[in-house]
Amino acid sequence: MKQLLKEIRHNPLLWLLAFVPVVFAAEKLKPETHTLLFVLSVLAIVPLAALLSHATESVAAKTGDSVGGLLNATLGNLTELVIALTALSAGQYMLVKSSIAGAIVANTLFMLGASFFLGGLKYHVQEYNRVSARVQAGLLFLATIALLIPSAVSQSDSVVGAGFTQKLSLGLAVLLIVAYGLGMLFSLKTHRELFANSEHAEESETPWPIGLAVATLVSVTVLVALVSEVFVESVQKAAEAFGMTPAFVGFIVVALVGGAAEMASAFSGARKNRLDLSVGIALGSASQIALFVAPALVLVSYFIGPTPMDLQFWPGAVVMILIATLTASLVTNSGRSAWFVGVLVLMVYLVFAMTLYILPPRVQ
Amino acid sequence: MKQLLKEIRHNPLLWLLAFVPVVFAAEKLKPETHTLLFVLSVLAIVPLAALLSHATESVAAKTGDSVGGLLNATLGNLTELVIALTALSAGQYMLVKSSIAGAIVANTLFMLGASFFLGGLKYHVQEYNRVSARVQAGLLFLATIALLIPSAVSQSDSVVGAGFTQKLSLGLAVLLIVAYGLGMLFSLKTHRELFANSEHAEESETPWPIGLAVATLVSVTVLVALVSEVFVESVQKAAEAFGMTPAFVGFIVVALVGGAAEMASAFSGARKNRLDLSVGIALGSASQIALFVAPALVLVSYFIGPTPMDLQFWPGAVVMILIATLTASLVTNSGRSAWFVGVLVLMVYLVFAMTLYILPPRVQ
Amino acid sequence: MKQLLKEIRHNPLLWLLAFVPVVFAAEKLKPETHTLLFVLSVLAIVPLAALLSHATESVAAKTGDSVGGLLNATLGNLTELVIALTALSAGQYMLVKSSIAGAIVANTLFMLGASFFLGGLKYHVQEYNRVSARVQAGLLFLATIALLIPSAVSQSDSVVGAGFTQKLSLGLAVLLIVAYGLGMLFSLKTHRELFANSEHAEESETPWPIGLAVATLVSVTVLVALVSEVFVESVQKAAEAFGMTPAFVGFIVVALVGGAAEMASAFSGARKNRLDLSVGIALGSASQIALFVAPALVLVSYFIGPTPMDLQFWPGAVVMILIATLTASLVTNSGRSAWFVGVLVLMVYLVFAMTLYILPPRVQ
Repeated sequence: MKQLLKEIRHNPLLWLLAFVPVVFAAEKLKPETHTLLFVLSVLAIVPLAALLSHATESVAAKTGDSVGGLLNATLGNLTELVIALTALSAGQYMLVKSSIAGAIVANTLFMLGASFFLGGLKYHVQEYNRVSARVQAGLLFLATIALLIPSAVSQSDSVVGAGFTQKLSLGLAVLLIVAYGLGMLFSLKTHRELFANSEHAEESETPWPIGLAVATLVSVTVLVALVSEVFVESVQKAAEAFGMTPAFVGFIVVALVGGAAEMASAFSGARKNRLDLSVGIALGSASQIALFVAPALVLVSYFIGPTPMDLQFWPGAVVMILIATLTASLVTNSGRSAWFVGVLVLMVYLVFAMTLYILPPRVQ
Repeated sequence: MKQLLKEIRHNPLLWLLAFVPVVFAAEKLKPETHTLLFVLSVLAIVPLAALLSHATESVAAKTGDSVGGLLNATLGNLTELVIALTALSAGQYMLVKSSIAGAIVANTLFMLGASFFLGGLKYHVQEYNRVSARVQAGLLFLATIALLIPSAVSQSDSVVGAGFTQKLSLGLAVLLIVAYGLGMLFSLKTHRELFANSEHAEESETPWPIGLAVATLVSVTVLVALVSEVFVESVQKAAEAFGMTPAFVGFIVVALVGGAAEMASAFSGARKNRLDLSVGIALGSASQIALFVAPALVLVSYFIGPTPMDLQFWPGAVVMILIATLTASLVTNSGRSAWFVGVLVLMVYLVFAMTLYILPPRVQ
Repeated sequence: MKQLLKEIRHNPLLWLLAFVPVVFAAEKLKPETHTLLFVLSVLAIVPLAALLSHATESVAAKTGDSVGGLLNATLGNLTELVIALTALSAGQYMLVKSSIAGAIVANTLFMLGASFFLGGLKYHVQEYNRVSARVQAGLLFLATIALLIPSAVSQSDSVVGAGFTQKLSLGLAVLLIVAYGLGMLFSLKTHRELFANSEHAEESETPWPIGLAVATLVSVTVLVALVSEVFVESVQKAAEAFGMTPAFVGFIVVALVGGAAEMASAFSGARKNRLDLSVGIALGSASQIALFVAPALVLVSYFIGPTPMDLQFWPGAVVMILIATLTASLVTNSGRSAWFVGVLVLMVYLVFAMTLYILPPRVQ
């Protein structure tokens, strides 16, 4: 507990934890101030995500390499997963889907681009391990392709049939989860040396004792779930007040909020000239969302949602995801980076954000 | 003849030749059992394709490098060509087109993915010649792009005019065949050293004497044509009985049946750690279909079909071909492979197959 | 002046300057002979573009590296810019847009492909600097992606709203120009060594004295503007007479005419086995059009056009630009080239041209 408090003292990001009780108080006292609740819940989720991330790593560090890797890989996007589950049980499928799509795009464009840019401001040219970047970009590309095929095929064929999409999404979810399991076997067991860099690098932070870590993991997950509820309830109305479309909120705001902790790690890696770490976090996290979070949500929707959720994304999201992963593949292909590469990748993200911001709202 | 029998004894695949007479007998006796005829004709085509492939190689080996290479390149997809011609003269254009599209996708995803997977089960990391893989992937990409442009442009412009598509397809067919001729000049004459590996490798099998080879080539081609007729006649009804769409049958079943012999070679190459061979067969065969088989069928359709055939593919096929060749380009870019790369490539193929299987049937 | 005349004597391309007065005379005497005026104006623009290009380089050579590079980068596509401005003030937005799209495609496919082909006829395999080609191809890819996002997203979403497209195009134009400015900072200042080859190479031609160069620059720009007016006025009617669609004229004819001078440099580089130069001109010029010419035209349209112009391209153009830049990325990835690579790249261009030629005319 003392260690936790010490950590909080040294990490300004964690001072935002003060907003957690504020959110709950505000919700009790002024349940109709949606905009305020939205802002407060965003401010509260960011430090919780950072804590969650540190707790996961600490548990992973204690449980040995294989189980630890498994935990890291499964819980690495726990914040995104909890927010999405909350939205799912509220039947807000548009929000769920746009946060899935947005998380993939934010990881591959914003996190990668900002890492290249921030690193490039300090170092003239940064080199990183091409081989492992290529392997990861390849996996990511194939993962997103698999995720998008139903949308692409059924859209271009304009054969709209709810039954068809539903059946396909279910089959696909099972396939993706199997691929995810095999991917863990690959990266943690048979070919772990290819991924070595990005995993060991994170150990520089002092891990917490196992008791504290597990307790934090459990209690913070509960807190995230509670705050997410406020967030999901207020987001719609707040978006209207800010003049944002639901697509923009899910795609940009939720994705950046949910991934804040990982972004902090990726950027700090880039500033220390360890782009391997940044690239590994960005591409690994994006793959995980495509191969694990998205299909898991489909499967879970059969139990907790009002109706089953499918994997059919709106066409603009398909285009954006495809462009984002293709960009990540091309950009990481050379194993070298400079600041302007970061600028251009960020520009693509900005253009996406601008398009979604201006786009008139639409029903899914 | 003795050599042929010896070959048959040693190659279990060729035992399926027993189904050739069975097909003809069944067709005479029970012409209305479409499902049975379909299954029997599939079982009969597979060993015939293997024989055809071996006969072509033997003739090629005897006629010297240049003519031999020419023969190999032209007759390498003879089975696919004969099946497609049979379907063409029956006016089944949907079947022809989906088998063209399916053959490209099966070569680039299934053959390549399964080679990587099977090779990867035996070897930790397999390396192959990057330079020649890149050249071949580049040719394949450009070939399929050229093939798809009319579909892509006219679809996205929704300017549907039968006359336009027809004229464009004819012009395109001529262009593709010219490019194919130049490509042979390139790979067999001016830059043969870039393709050297994959051609010499196949000589490990004992070539047949020239007389036997030519006789086999001619007689087996006739047999394939006859069996194809049964196959094409029964496929529609059989597909209905199995609950398959015509798209699935053409795209998946015909493509895998027609390419069975080449797949056997590619997989055996991968198991012997000669991925150069496997990649060469997969990408070379896909290029050949795009640059030679497809345009040849368009030109031939002016003489044997009920009406001329165009090159406009249905939108889902365009998306699948583009994704398949892009995947092949990205995956072969590194010159290294491991089992999970194969899993992911196969997964993309599986997702395609699943989508087509579930997709409700449609008229072309 | 003597130097200018000497230059003209030695460069057969410049003999076409004789057509400049002929155009003006013809326009006065026979203003209704559109086809003749069209042909004459094309013949007059080609040598003017060559002069403009040489004058720009001479000024750049005298003003020191940074300012010179800036000038070269800004005025490199001056001919295209002047033609487009003339079309813009005449309200011919379809012509403007198709010439922007066509210039990107002509640079990445025709200029690159013909350079590879012409160089490959003389040299067995040509190698060039992979690293700088990759950087440039990456920039080009991201630049065109940013340019195309509004078209892609709004099309696939079929949310057509003139206000939306207009607002997005304006925001995008500002973003692209900022990226362009940062790109010049990158290539001329912070990372100039990556682009070194392609810039110094051009100095082989004797630069003109600064007075002559500036005078030529100014007076030839005026001439280009005047001839462009004739060109833009006659192009529509002439196209009808030749049976060409407006899309074909803008995309193919204007793009090739405007880029003739640069193409001459790129091809001569390829014949001297300096593919670095050719690749640099082709990709650099394409990037410049996407990042500078296109957004500048949008901004200028608020002042000189009848109504503001947006950046929404017709769907076929989006597909073609995407395919062209993707092809350029893949093809330059290896840093090696042979004649057949050029053939295939040219074939893609030919297919585009054929498609546009056959495509029935449409209103934008």
